[in-house]
Amino acid sequence: MAARYLYGQPTRGRWDHGTTGGPRPVHDALGWLDDEAARRHRAGLHRELRPRAADAAPLDLAGNDYLGLARHPEVIAAAVEAAERWGAGATGSRLVTGSTALHAELEAELADFCGFEAALVLASGYAANLAALTALGGRGTLIASDAGNHASLIDGCRLAHAEVAVVPHADPAAFDKALDRHQGRALAVTDSVFSVDGDAAPLPALAAVCRERGAALIVDDAHGLGVLGEGGRGAVAAAGLAGAPDVVATVTLSKSLGSQGGAVLGPRRVIDHLVNAARTFIFDTGLAPAAAGAALGALRLLRREPGRAERARSHAATLHRRLTAGGLSAARPDAAVVSVRAPSPEAAVGWAAECRAAGVAVGCFRPPSVPDGVSRLRLTARADLTRGALNRALATILTTAPRP
Amino acid sequence: MAARYLYGQPTRGRWDHGTTGGPRPVHDALGWLDDEAARRHRAGLHRELRPRAADAAPLDLAGNDYLGLARHPEVIAAAVEAAERWGAGATGSRLVTGSTALHAELEAELADFCGFEAALVLASGYAANLAALTALGGRGTLIASDAGNHASLIDGCRLAHAEVAVVPHADPAAFDKALDRHQGRALAVTDSVFSVDGDAAPLPALAAVCRERGAALIVDDAHGLGVLGEGGRGAVAAAGLAGAPDVVATVTLSKSLGSQGGAVLGPRRVIDHLVNAARTFIFDTGLAPAAAGAALGALRLLRREPGRAERARSHAATLHRRLTAGGLSAARPDAAVVSVRAPSPEAAVGWAAECRAAGVAVGCFRPPSVPDGVSRLRLTARADLTRGALNRALATILTTAPRP
Ligand SMILES: Cc1ncc(COP(=O)(O)O)c(C=O)c1O
Ligand SMILES: Cc1ncc(COP(=O)(O)O)c(C=O)c1O
Repeated sequence: MAARYLYGQPTRGRWDHGTTGGPRPVHDALGWLDDEAARRHRAGLHRELRPRAADAAPLDLAGNDYLGLARHPEVIAAAVEAAERWGAGATGSRLVTGSTALHAELEAELADFCGFEAALVLASGYAANLAALTALGGRGTLIASDAGNHASLIDGCRLAHAEVAVVPHADPAAFDKALDRHQGRALAVTDSVFSVDGDAAPLPALAAVCRERGAALIVDDAHGLGVLGEGGRGAVAAAGLAGAPDVVATVTLSKSLGSQGGAVLGPRRVIDHLVNAARTFIFDTGLAPAAAGAALGALRLLRREPGRAERARSHAATLHRRLTAGGLSAARPDAAVVSVRAPSPEAAVGWAAECRAAGVAVGCFRPPSVPDGVSRLRLTARADLTRGALNRALATILTTAPRP
Repeated sequence: MAARYLYGQPTRGRWDHGTTGGPRPVHDALGWLDDEAARRHRAGLHRELRPRAADAAPLDLAGNDYLGLARHPEVIAAAVEAAERWGAGATGSRLVTGSTALHAELEAELADFCGFEAALVLASGYAANLAALTALGGRGTLIASDAGNHASLIDGCRLAHAEVAVVPHADPAAFDKALDRHQGRALAVTDSVFSVDGDAAPLPALAAVCRERGAALIVDDAHGLGVLGEGGRGAVAAAGLAGAPDVVATVTLSKSLGSQGGAVLGPRRVIDHLVNAARTFIFDTGLAPAAAGAALGALRLLRREPGRAERARSHAATLHRRLTAGGLSAARPDAAVVSVRAPSPEAAVGWAAECRAAGVAVGCFRPPSVPDGVSRLRLTARADLTRGALNRALATILTTAPRP
């Protein structure tokens, strides 16, 4: 089998081709992957994809479709209309052929809704975070980054060629200390709502620190948009920081807006700079029209039905109240994410599997996807869950909970 | 105006809040952006977005929709059907709720078409490259990377925690030298077709070097898929390397397949590893169903109409032949990209603008998007251009060419 892949005709023997580096066998270049897989299996940390079927619709408390808009007929109709009008793909990077009037419309409405001067849409929230951090970072810049930040922010810090100070979670005094030591350009970066535990960052205090220290503040509002703030305008708006000259927000179109994509929101000069400097913007194909259209449709729906945001929050509060009343250890939710502790990775996996078998999908987070090594179920409180559905989900989670 | 954003009430005067770091003014944290913008404008390097209208359809030689599938009714219908069946978004990461049977189907058909054991679909080609390099790199690994590689590969190298050797462009001996010095795990990474000049990498020779040196080979086939190889199976297949145990390909769904998204193709163990280790896979929302559906529709169409690949290549050869006959300096195309030199960034911008004014869209690449500082027009030869359209495009480009 491997012989099929001996490229060209080796003219020398198997051990006889070393030059300066000395002899080395023609070995299995990716053989280490088998060891890795074995290690994963032994540690109970192996993951596999489980594609869902279109008709099998479990009660979903696992996805991030907080407002229940991904399957909303109006949002789907907006996706369909966009694909029919603009085509299936953007056909090029945003600076070449990939900017349509639809992208511009989405950017204008997103900025307006969230209270920022301008917005820039990218292919994903991940790309938006890489864009913001790399374009606003750079050599000589200090980035103070919350220890609980999302992977995309961490990767953005790594790509930014900046000095990075990882500071203790949700601790403005720690940000202050980190920023105080630095003389040049500085940024502070934080999730608004942390993705694993659903706790909120102390945004007003962080902004005050940044203002004192002359640092810009970048807030990833992925889990705040659509859930927090008046009518779902997000955590940055709720903190009164939207539109500030030194505050930049990133959002995703893939959670509350039920679609795909991401955006950076900020002063016009920040957006202009990103257009000229952000690699994940310049060197990436524009967001597909269907995704841009769906996000715009969702945004308009949310404007018309602002109560959805409040409903997601109140469902989360209900979940938390009744799970803790049932003896489980759950973090008090600041948005629509409720995190419930599990005694071990194996217990978490088993618990999630039992829920799924009973028709309730829940998230299961375990190392290395959790910051602290603690495995947990992660529940999302969708705005469109009925009372009956909530009750059924609660009963299932409580009855399948691992005994301590 | 700025006063609206004085967060909290500063208790100390403007210059009086230093503690250990000494006094520092409350300054404009993002003021440097104005200097940057001025510098860009002075250097003639400022870029702005120019959204296109749905009805204004210039003759497009700028996008990467090589096979003309982004607006193909069958591909759009596939996008529409997917959105209606699965919803506007994937609702979560692929390991939580974001994997549908549609994603699995696309993965199976992509792998089969390109000749690989398995495939993994991600939200963009950019994300696919970051995934492959970070998951297969790691501390102690050497990555030898072609100097002309795409930004996403460069960023992937930077994120991989590996030692990176940037080697001269398209030079197997240079790869050999770089790999020879290293004792541990090693990767070589290259575009199959370089995005700016459209030249092909010497894949068989690179693969021979990798095999000798015990390195795995990662090939970004973004501009090869759909254009090179039998029926558009890509450059890796054309080189006889598809399915090799130590060869991994990345592709994008956003160019020949007219959609959005990316994929990694390789041995099953590589894909399993990525599912467990690749951050841009694990921590990113799954590709929107409409985009997955469109890509699958395009793939099926390409299987039925394999002549599209050959047509794109022959149109590129025509463009090159007649542009050089007309006295322009153009690189001989190995795929569907034709690069034409411009005397300066300003001349390139002016030239592209004149073409656009005459109804012909062409790409314009200038610093910092070009590896060598040389500005150029970048033309793409779409398979569905008619002879008349080709003639019109050629006449426009030749008559608007800057005089030396
Ligand atoms: C806090 C946070 N930021 C960014 C992202 C990335 O957004 P996207 O999935 O749209 O790329 C996610 C989740 O995926 C997230 O949870
Ligand atoms: C060579 C190459 N690799 C990767 C990408 C990224 O693919 P995508 O735009 O689908 O993210 C591109 C272009 O965008 C490219 O030209």
